[in-house]
Amino acid sequence: MIIPVKTSTGGYDIILERGAIGKIEEYLCLSGKTLVVTDSGVPSRYAESVAEKCESAYTVTIEQGEASKTLDSFKHLLSKLVEYGFTRSDRVIAVGGGVVGDLAGFTASAYMRGIDFINIPTTLLSQVDSSIGGKTAVDFMGIKNIVGAFYPPKKVIIDPETLKTLPKRQVSNGLSEALKMSLTSDATLFDIFENADVDEAIDTIIERSLMIKKSVVEEDEKESGLRRVLNFGHTLAHAVETANGMENYYHGECVAIGMVPMCSQAVRERLIPVLKKLELPYELGGESVDALIDACSHDKKLTGKDITVVYVNEIGSFEFRKMAFDEYEKTIREVIR
Amino acid sequence: MIIPVKTSTGGYDIILERGAIGKIEEYLCLSGKTLVVTDSGVPSRYAESVAEKCESAYTVTIEQGEASKTLDSFKHLLSKLVEYGFTRSDRVIAVGGGVVGDLAGFTASAYMRGIDFINIPTTLLSQVDSSIGGKTAVDFMGIKNIVGAFYPPKKVIIDPETLKTLPKRQVSNGLSEALKMSLTSDATLFDIFENADVDEAIDTIIERSLMIKKSVVEEDEKESGLRRVLNFGHTLAHAVETANGMENYYHGECVAIGMVPMCSQAVRERLIPVLKKLELPYELGGESVDALIDACSHDKKLTGKDITVVYVNEIGSFEFRKMAFDEYEKTIREVIR
Repeated sequence: MIIPVKTSTGGYDIILERGAIGKIEEYLCLSGKTLVVTDSGVPSRYAESVAEKCESAYTVTIEQGEASKTLDSFKHLLSKLVEYGFTRSDRVIAVGGGVVGDLAGFTASAYMRGIDFINIPTTLLSQVDSSIGGKTAVDFMGIKNIVGAFYPPKKVIIDPETLKTLPKRQVSNGLSEALKMSLTSDATLFDIFENADVDEAIDTIIERSLMIKKSVVEEDEKESGLRRVLNFGHTLAHAVETANGMENYYHGECVAIGMVPMCSQAVRERLIPVLKKLELPYELGGESVDALIDACSHDKKLTGKDITVVYVNEIGSFEFRKMAFDEYEKTIREVIR
Repeated sequence: MIIPVKTSTGGYDIILERGAIGKIEEYLCLSGKTLVVTDSGVPSRYAESVAEKCESAYTVTIEQGEASKTLDSFKHLLSKLVEYGFTRSDRVIAVGGGVVGDLAGFTASAYMRGIDFINIPTTLLSQVDSSIGGKTAVDFMGIKNIVGAFYPPKKVIIDPETLKTLPKRQVSNGLSEALKMSLTSDATLFDIFENADVDEAIDTIIERSLMIKKSVVEEDEKESGLRRVLNFGHTLAHAVETANGMENYYHGECVAIGMVPMCSQAVRERLIPVLKKLELPYELGGESVDALIDACSHDKKLTGKDITVVYVNEIGSFEFRKMAFDEYEKTIREVIR
């Protein structure tokens, strides 16, 4: 299926189709030069299959993991584009997860002030979340995504077949973001998580998540208001990541923990069994609540005096709730162990 | 006067007023944090006067000259924004010429995926040209402006009083771009160059140049077509810059030389006396035509097989002329010495 996403500069299509990665020539112009960016954790046959279809492909494989999302990697990719003589009519294709997409997208945005960027996300997390919305970035001085651009892709190609090679824990990592979207925006999707076989329903889960994210980013492309709904569970998630040095937990696992205190009691009673079913955490591991609160107060410096959180009173709807930091701390301490 | 410029994301105002730099608080919100970026060639009192008006200002002075327009400088400015804890509601103000504006603008575009950027150009070249249009960039691997972003400023403040401290040769450098715009788009402005006292007419020259550039960038924000009219004289100018290592000539001087062969004989007969009057070059100095042709053929790699030049048959109008490289070479050899 084709899901069109509108942007201020026109728009782009998301292709959601099993087997799509094997026939990208049906969706893309591949003449001229293509820089294929992938990472060492992605089965190499995906990037190879993409490169084979290009008139002239150059593949760069970065090290797997967040540590690759740096200005140095950005500079390295730019140097390849210069070295291979890329022009405005050439393109960059990302084949991999969020790290590859963010890095390759930012590079494409900056080279000659912007050449075509195509995203082929191969992890569930990037398929349901990071590949849509046009946010690209790298980390800098220990701060995630602090340097980047709003730069919509030319096309996003999502092939759920690639999930077959994804480790189970990585699948749960992606399901957490889909679950997040169901809580704020789609009670039917939450029902699927509660009652269906998630593996069997995966195409529907991806599709419904994409539709939610599409409607949010279309309404608020540059993240000035509504788009913050996507941050449900994320203020605390970032604190968990900081307290953990982003190492022990995956992003989706941090989001899972982060959502729990931001729900009403009634919602929480339905949420926790689903988190268990998806093998996602719902309470803290080694780190203390004190360390979390400390990390939150650091994050707060960047966002102003009060914290505006997304709160779910009832499944499928949300409110922006402004909290003084004390109240926020109290809410977390009451729920998180 | 206020000149509004429309962009796909809204638009911005250009304030053109004598003495404006001394009362920026009338035009700008200056609460929160401001990074003031200037260079060692700009009289320091301009940046000081801007910083004084800000609630909380941090000034970075880069080395004067194109050699500062690098990814390293970009990284340096970003590190200052992180170090001083800049948020989305803070801003970057450039006080200086094109190098400062390009570098500061690209930095503002990338920090947190974009914070407010205000440009206060203090050279004539940046006042009539580079401060409008939203192009920001740094040089990389020896290629000018190869890494950057289309990122419109929030406001541009032009104070012709700053030209009093500008060396005469730098004034001519800016006049060359204004003259370029008159040739393609404004016969009345060309008449001013031909017949008026240029110093006395400088406010009018700036205003008319801004109006031309405004109408071009409004019609073609992302440089996909019409905007190329602004490249009149620039293909050859870039070759002169390459052959010279960007050192012996100023940019506007290269443009002056570059325009000469791209005019009809009749236009050239009026152009050369004006170039003499403005103390701009109209023929080559030390470098040979062979070296120029060589540099052009290198540039061609980046732009495709044929060269599309802007050609002026009659003052105030232009055509896009597609030339095979041989024809282009012949045209240059016939005119340039």
